[in-house]
Amino acid sequence: MTQISPADRMALIERNTSEVMGRSDLLELLATPTPIRHYIGFEISGKVHLGTGLVSMGKVRDFLAAGIDCHVLLADWHTWINDKLGGDREVIRRIATGYFTEAMRASLLALGTDPSRVHFVLGTDLYDSHPDYWTTVIEVSRNTTLARMLRSISILGREQSDSVDFAKLIYPAMQAADIFAQGINLAHAGTEQRKAHVIARDVATKIRTNRLTDFEGRTVKPAAVHHPLLLGLRRPPVWPLPEDVDPSTLKMSKSDPSSAVFVHDDPDTIRRRVAKAFCPPEETRLNPVLNWFDQLVFALDETPVTIKRGAGSGGDATFDTYAELADAYGRGLLHPGDVKNTLAVRLIDRLEPARAHFARPEVAAMLEEVDAALGTRG
Amino acid sequence: MTQISPADRMALIERNTSEVMGRSDLLELLATPTPIRHYIGFEISGKVHLGTGLVSMGKVRDFLAAGIDCHVLLADWHTWINDKLGGDREVIRRIATGYFTEAMRASLLALGTDPSRVHFVLGTDLYDSHPDYWTTVIEVSRNTTLARMLRSISILGREQSDSVDFAKLIYPAMQAADIFAQGINLAHAGTEQRKAHVIARDVATKIRTNRLTDFEGRTVKPAAVHHPLLLGLRRPPVWPLPEDVDPSTLKMSKSDPSSAVFVHDDPDTIRRRVAKAFCPPEETRLNPVLNWFDQLVFALDETPVTIKRGAGSGGDATFDTYAELADAYGRGLLHPGDVKNTLAVRLIDRLEPARAHFARPEVAAMLEEVDAALGTRG
Repeated sequence: MTQISPADRMALIERNTSEVMGRSDLLELLATPTPIRHYIGFEISGKVHLGTGLVSMGKVRDFLAAGIDCHVLLADWHTWINDKLGGDREVIRRIATGYFTEAMRASLLALGTDPSRVHFVLGTDLYDSHPDYWTTVIEVSRNTTLARMLRSISILGREQSDSVDFAKLIYPAMQAADIFAQGINLAHAGTEQRKAHVIARDVATKIRTNRLTDFEGRTVKPAAVHHPLLLGLRRPPVWPLPEDVDPSTLKMSKSDPSSAVFVHDDPDTIRRRVAKAFCPPEETRLNPVLNWFDQLVFALDETPVTIKRGAGSGGDATFDTYAELADAYGRGLLHPGDVKNTLAVRLIDRLEPARAHFARPEVAAMLEEVDAALGTRG
Repeated sequence: MTQISPADRMALIERNTSEVMGRSDLLELLATPTPIRHYIGFEISGKVHLGTGLVSMGKVRDFLAAGIDCHVLLADWHTWINDKLGGDREVIRRIATGYFTEAMRASLLALGTDPSRVHFVLGTDLYDSHPDYWTTVIEVSRNTTLARMLRSISILGREQSDSVDFAKLIYPAMQAADIFAQGINLAHAGTEQRKAHVIARDVATKIRTNRLTDFEGRTVKPAAVHHPLLLGLRRPPVWPLPEDVDPSTLKMSKSDPSSAVFVHDDPDTIRRRVAKAFCPPEETRLNPVLNWFDQLVFALDETPVTIKRGAGSGGDATFDTYAELADAYGRGLLHPGDVKNTLAVRLIDRLEPARAHFARPEVAAMLEEVDAALGTRG
């Protein structure tokens, strides 16, 4: 156990997040000797982009620094339910334990973190080793209304909800059961998963199997940390964004490679992607290049950022915080080309250990298998 | 394997049923060497009345005569999901494998059938021994819309459906998976379960795990047999029954002992219940006494029925078929008191072996446990 104070642990947990749900529960738990167990679950649906690789593993690096036991759930059942990778369970499992795990390890290496400190758990193995898992799924379901399940998945109208395949609605019940079966008191995901975490917190005191308890056996509710979504690099279909469009629709998508950078991308690809990125001058809101500076540069580094510029453009400019850089950009003191160049250099540097990991022949072969399974060459 | 012809087997399967769903599929199967595997599932929700004991086991006697392998599923998970027996899983399991199994064995004895010919399977044991069971539940769900699941459970309005606890909707998916996990090609239930069987038939060709196949490995759909519901003995709240009331609401209910006879009831109780039964003169439709003559006397016996009457009432009258008896009753030739007396005598006779089974001290103790669990003395 680390010797850092509860307040310092909370600061590490909280940094670069959009929300800590159940913050006071978590603070109480941090004041006890209860070990904190974290997990983040992933569908195995393609190649690992920087949102998955650097943003979520950046938080895992924080959690490890806070003395927290970290788990990555390779959610093969959820992947299957959501019809990813052709819904082929064998392919999903092989890619989960092969490529995907290596890509997450590569991401941890890129963050200077020893990957062996993170536990990787395949959903199937979790369920097979917990005979009570499905009891917990039913217990979660007994304590959750249909309306609640419907709200926790992304469905628009009534007609759409009537025709949804029913397995999609079991998905959030399984997500909540995943938390209890693993004994997780700190669930972690992107903001889009928050409703499943609300369900888990609501049923925590009502279930009998796999109850979550503190070091003295008292029932506790899992806290949940949500990191913000990383913007995709592509120009939105309509700009400026109309008021009624949810900005979360602009998140990076692995199914659109031109919107994304993957953790194992080579320097040329990174430079090309960033160079083509949408980056409206003087606009800092929903500007992916600025957003990446925020989340992939300042959030992950403690060092100042120097934007290289020619002498004619004012020469190099150094910023200690994202707020300072954004302020300068918003006032037109930095040009899109300047920030893009510096961003590309920082990402290429950051990802060097990930590329090295994927240069190993057995890992490179896993990437080739994914490319083949996806039928694309990102 | 019996040597009886497919047509004779079908006649046995079909007698005293309201429906054989997938009749032509079943006929095709009967023309092959494919073994026919039957099951009927029961929630463990109280004492075993004659609908469960004699009507459903009467069909099981027919199936056994047709050379069919018969299974009773003690549906402990379904019982729990439907909040029966206080939702206490331990109590449910103990009563399922104790009292309930003995009551069904007693019923088989009352029908002159050796209970060892029927397999009793606890849901929990089925699921524990089939690692693919929950995969099949998800596969059934993937291939069924929410609207379909909602229609297969008894819910009225949209508001009610929104607030239904979600586990109730997983119930029909489990029912369908029960069929596939057990390799059942002949599912059996009361008519109220038909929608779950429709789901099972619809997904049969779409699932990959636990596929149902014939002797040559070809995928087949399960057939389903539905027996009619037995009427309760109590007078309906409104009589004559308004057009818009579903007659199935008049079925016998174990939660209303005055509407029911249980398989282990003593002769006095049987006489008292039948004597008090609703039995409108000259009315054969929805008349429980007539309905019981149909389903519990003529359907189970091959012998004629003699209604004992005093010489002043026309003396004894003998009927070879239910239709003849109903016709005489409808024309006022038989009085309620006469048919009730004869019905009581026939039931007391029929149930003698069941009472004898429950006279065994270890079995009697199980009945006492159920009475205690229900907090009532039926």
